Amino acid sequence: MMQKLSIKTNNKVELIDITTKVQNAVKEAGLDSGLVEIYIPHTTAAVTINENADPDVKADIKKEINKIVPFDDNYSHLEGNSAAHIKSSLFGVNQSIIVENKKLLLGTWQGIYFCEFDGPRSRNIYLKIIRD
Amino acid sequence: MMQKLSIKTNNKVELIDITTKVQNAVKEAGLDSGLVEIYIPHTTAAVTINENADPDVKADIKKEINKIVPFDDNYSHLEGNSAAHIKSSLFGVNQSIIVENKKLLLGTWQGIYFCEFDGPRSRNIYLKIIRD
Amino acid sequence: MMQKLSIKTNNKVELIDITTKVQNAVKEAGLDSGLVEIYIPHTTAAVTINENADPDVKADIKKEINKIVPFDDNYSHLEGNSAAHIKSSLFGVNQSIIVENKKLLLGTWQGIYFCEFDGPRSRNIYLKIIRD
Repeated sequence: MMQKLSIKTNNKVELIDITTKVQNAVKEAGLDSGLVEIYIPHTTAAVTINENADPDVKADIKKEINKIVPFDDNYSHLEGNSAAHIKSSLFGVNQSIIVENKKLLLGTWQGIYFCEFDGPRSRNIYLKIIRD
Repeated sequence: MMQKLSIKTNNKVELIDITTKVQNAVKEAGLDSGLVEIYIPHTTAAVTINENADPDVKADIKKEINKIVPFDDNYSHLEGNSAAHIKSSLFGVNQSIIVENKKLLLGTWQGIYFCEFDGPRSRNIYLKIIRD
Repeated sequence: MMQKLSIKTNNKVELIDITTKVQNAVKEAGLDSGLVEIYIPHTTAAVTINENADPDVKADIKKEINKIVPFDDNYSHLEGNSAAHIKSSLFGVNQSIIVENKKLLLGTWQGIYFCEFDGPRSRNIYLKIIRD
């Protein structure tokens, strides 16, 4: 069983909390116990799990990854978005989360973030349910 | 089937070999063949797979990740542990490992490491068994 | 069901497109719908998903990761390949990809790359099929 979510991003680099969307999709699929795989079918975006309490954490993640992988660094790729491709490989395009009693088994402070590294764009997110 | 392991970390940044703990949990679960998902429910920790022969590799990984993501870099998050959050997203909070004949199918030199980036703390590790 | 692929790498740092090999293995396994886990049993290699259209993207990824993790940086590990170990943890040794209608559900521009960080060497890739 595969589901597709769509989102619109509004900035060049942006972390968007998709926890509720994923939780709702798991509920709609009627999954009691298993795994949900979140897969991003893009090469200049990613998905990560991190704190969803203080928004300053998101701001610091964005600022620091932009420093680790500078937007301009004599890249060869003519589209000008090589930094976004590299960030995608560093954060990764998939995450697997355990589901128990119909709920995502996240830690207390964890949220799921879609990571836009070359926006704004229309993006897709694939979800795959693995039942016990 | 979900299992929870607990560990205590002793340093601010620390890599702790959890291979034997995971192997024992797989054995106790009676899993012959399938996958085990290792999931860290924390936002300032991670799990990685790397060499478990020469302890210098662990030391080099710690030193270099501390350099790539400095402890202090004009971060906004007032808790002062933004570097740990960023390292968590770079290494990732989950790993899936193949199980065959009741054994983790790791490479010859591979071990599984819990990565503490903001210790010392008491930490949890979730394990999810996916049977063939 | 577990399959093993073998490849030879030719350079110290190299990204090798293995998409067709993985697609063929999925077809041979007769998988209609499920997940395929790609697992690298090495500590100085990785697997990533990124653009497979313009080869300059591969070149930029290699150049930038070599800059983020320098080959020499007063590492302790006497084998001299600590940079490769660190790159392996940053990119990761596994990826899970959704399979629908016997096909890898990759995005339009996505390919699967074996990442060699300490070649040239003979390397293995494990594939694990998870059926719906």
